[in-house]
Amino acid sequence: MPTLVMKFGGTSVATPERIRNAAERVEREVANGYDVIVIVSAMAGKTNELVGWVEETSNLYDAREYDAVVSSGEQVTAGLMALTLQERDVPARSWQGWQVPLKTSNAHASARIEDIGTDAINAKFAEGMKVAVVAGFQGISPEGRITTLGRGGSDTTAVAFAAAFGAERCDIYTDVDGVYTTDPRITSKARKLDRIAFEEMLELASLGAKVLQTRSVELAMRYKVKLRVLSSFENADQGETAGTLVCDEEDIMESNVVAGVAYSRDEAKMTLLSVADRPGIAAAIFGPLSDAGINVDMIVQNISEDGRTDMTFSLPTNQVERAKSAMETVKNSGDVNYTDLVTDEEVAKISVVGIGMRSHAGVAAQMFKALRDEGINIKVITTSEIKISVLIERKYTELAVQALHDTFALESAG
Amino acid sequence: MPTLVMKFGGTSVATPERIRNAAERVEREVANGYDVIVIVSAMAGKTNELVGWVEETSNLYDAREYDAVVSSGEQVTAGLMALTLQERDVPARSWQGWQVPLKTSNAHASARIEDIGTDAINAKFAEGMKVAVVAGFQGISPEGRITTLGRGGSDTTAVAFAAAFGAERCDIYTDVDGVYTTDPRITSKARKLDRIAFEEMLELASLGAKVLQTRSVELAMRYKVKLRVLSSFENADQGETAGTLVCDEEDIMESNVVAGVAYSRDEAKMTLLSVADRPGIAAAIFGPLSDAGINVDMIVQNISEDGRTDMTFSLPTNQVERAKSAMETVKNSGDVNYTDLVTDEEVAKISVVGIGMRSHAGVAAQMFKALRDEGINIKVITTSEIKISVLIERKYTELAVQALHDTFALESAG
Repeated sequence: MPTLVMKFGGTSVATPERIRNAAERVEREVANGYDVIVIVSAMAGKTNELVGWVEETSNLYDAREYDAVVSSGEQVTAGLMALTLQERDVPARSWQGWQVPLKTSNAHASARIEDIGTDAINAKFAEGMKVAVVAGFQGISPEGRITTLGRGGSDTTAVAFAAAFGAERCDIYTDVDGVYTTDPRITSKARKLDRIAFEEMLELASLGAKVLQTRSVELAMRYKVKLRVLSSFENADQGETAGTLVCDEEDIMESNVVAGVAYSRDEAKMTLLSVADRPGIAAAIFGPLSDAGINVDMIVQNISEDGRTDMTFSLPTNQVERAKSAMETVKNSGDVNYTDLVTDEEVAKISVVGIGMRSHAGVAAQMFKALRDEGINIKVITTSEIKISVLIERKYTELAVQALHDTFALESAG
Repeated sequence: MPTLVMKFGGTSVATPERIRNAAERVEREVANGYDVIVIVSAMAGKTNELVGWVEETSNLYDAREYDAVVSSGEQVTAGLMALTLQERDVPARSWQGWQVPLKTSNAHASARIEDIGTDAINAKFAEGMKVAVVAGFQGISPEGRITTLGRGGSDTTAVAFAAAFGAERCDIYTDVDGVYTTDPRITSKARKLDRIAFEEMLELASLGAKVLQTRSVELAMRYKVKLRVLSSFENADQGETAGTLVCDEEDIMESNVVAGVAYSRDEAKMTLLSVADRPGIAAAIFGPLSDAGINVDMIVQNISEDGRTDMTFSLPTNQVERAKSAMETVKNSGDVNYTDLVTDEEVAKISVVGIGMRSHAGVAAQMFKALRDEGINIKVITTSEIKISVLIERKYTELAVQALHDTFALESAG
């Protein structure tokens, strides 16, 4: 029988009533002829309650005990989901991570999946079980202790199961109905995408479109797992075209050059004026920033003049003070001799993402023209193969997103 | 190093603050030179919350899923207790039932302990760990699924660990400070016992002194585990004489003939008048009652006259209706031909318990005289080696308990 993985997030299993709604969707897929693996998160709020107790108990806590405590939330929903399915006469049972087993590294609280045993669950499918309900987010370490995969780990669990069991698809049920061309709160023209390529989803996820964890998209791309994002709060009978399918680019017949416009308001820009343009200068600056835990994003080095150059980079607003003090330290130690440090905390990052850019020239020019036509000045530009990002003044965020959404005609399907 | 088992019930670990208080007691015993095994219950109220969800989900639930859900409460407190001890620089770690492993039968929701592996925990003690925190109430089935031991199972877990590890003692921390000669709400003369024999505790536990689960006392008696009941809400420095020690009768140097007076108000008496006194008549009556789930307690058969006899038995008040209908069925089928069925729902059972009865004649006579002196009529009498129970009119319950407590001089130590 074909296998389907269905993952339900915390808001989708927040109460016994919502678990019943989710179970109804599972039952429908069983009726469609699938063996189903259901991955569940903890009931909304439960993980925070458990983490709260741990943090109230201990500041520098033992991550192994943290994992033992926090993993209990998924254990509860797995059992309740199995009971709910049984109540609907669907043969089901629950599995803890250690029972599967889902083997992970020893890195407690942020473990990596190393192996998923398929024998035990497949044996039950062979005996007539229709649904294996698996507690998401958790696994077992080489020492036999409970591990967790870090925040959003249940998405990763779901994709890993889909890969291990060769599932036809991995459906991620959440509280949004798919991936949009941009944030619908910014423009009503935002359109739900029927399909998006893994690479595009990765860029969007890392840009802050918080629909899927980056890690789960990476995993899906590596193992070519078709990943569908859809809402658990819409009509259960959404059919095959519901939500957004994240898939290989070959599976996308026609697509716009640009898939979506993303933004991030939480950005600051920092420039070191007139640093010596010598080998190793970048390492001398960004090594200490990395050591201080600063997430530097865009980096631009100006053309050198008289052996001096300006170095500009962007970073999250709330890391500016730490970055300043790291830079003062390197200046004082004589490693980096800059004349001044200029900070701009009123910027936003706007990005257009699309695999079509690879074959279509002129996307950057079209983007810059659209921003110029609105009178928006560009402070920093970076590009990758399928993404162009710019820093602009923060007050123009909505205007820029709307202009770019229009100029690339994202309101109409490609 | 000598090993000590310490068990903390739900009210003793209800909040992170109370867990800290409990950890303080554990730390004290570590300082006293013990390797400690701590058994924890779920935070007070948590098990009921989990059971509530299960019951909301399903009426005739799969006990295997019930166990998966309900066992999560102990998992949380075990982790939090380990963290709390670590925070106090006490080397500790948590263990789930399946990690120990604590192997049980397959009888989910009321599993029996079959084996406790000691190697893994002992290896950690050898490495310098001072405290193993074990989630109570839970184990692992031969099929590798989580089991629970039924209500009060954490007491049983504690005693089983004490037996498996040859612990010097098993301390049960609860919300009362020990076992009393009778209910202190009935007489202020009630005295906390320093020691009580296993057999006496068993009779008292089954009579409704709800300090310890009967099952844990049976297990302690079989494996000669010294069991101490004490309060987790009193001064931490209670010393060796705190609470009540439940132990072998040889360990009790001097004792009163009677250890305590117990009572149960929730009793009814039923009499079948003039049944045929023939072989198999008891089976014909009590078989159907047992099949109907009636907990018959005391049974008295009067002297036979002309081949007919009266059969009297006691049972819980709320089972009277079911018992009546079972008796009507056997009468109608012709198996038991009685002339009338008389029910008295206004009775109470009063019992005196003490191993000293074995060697002291006249306890029964002294008991009957004390009741007669108060004008209390005895309706039914049963005796065992260390217990005499009577049924009396319910309104005399307090009077009878007080009179017996006085007549056996229980307010003064033996």
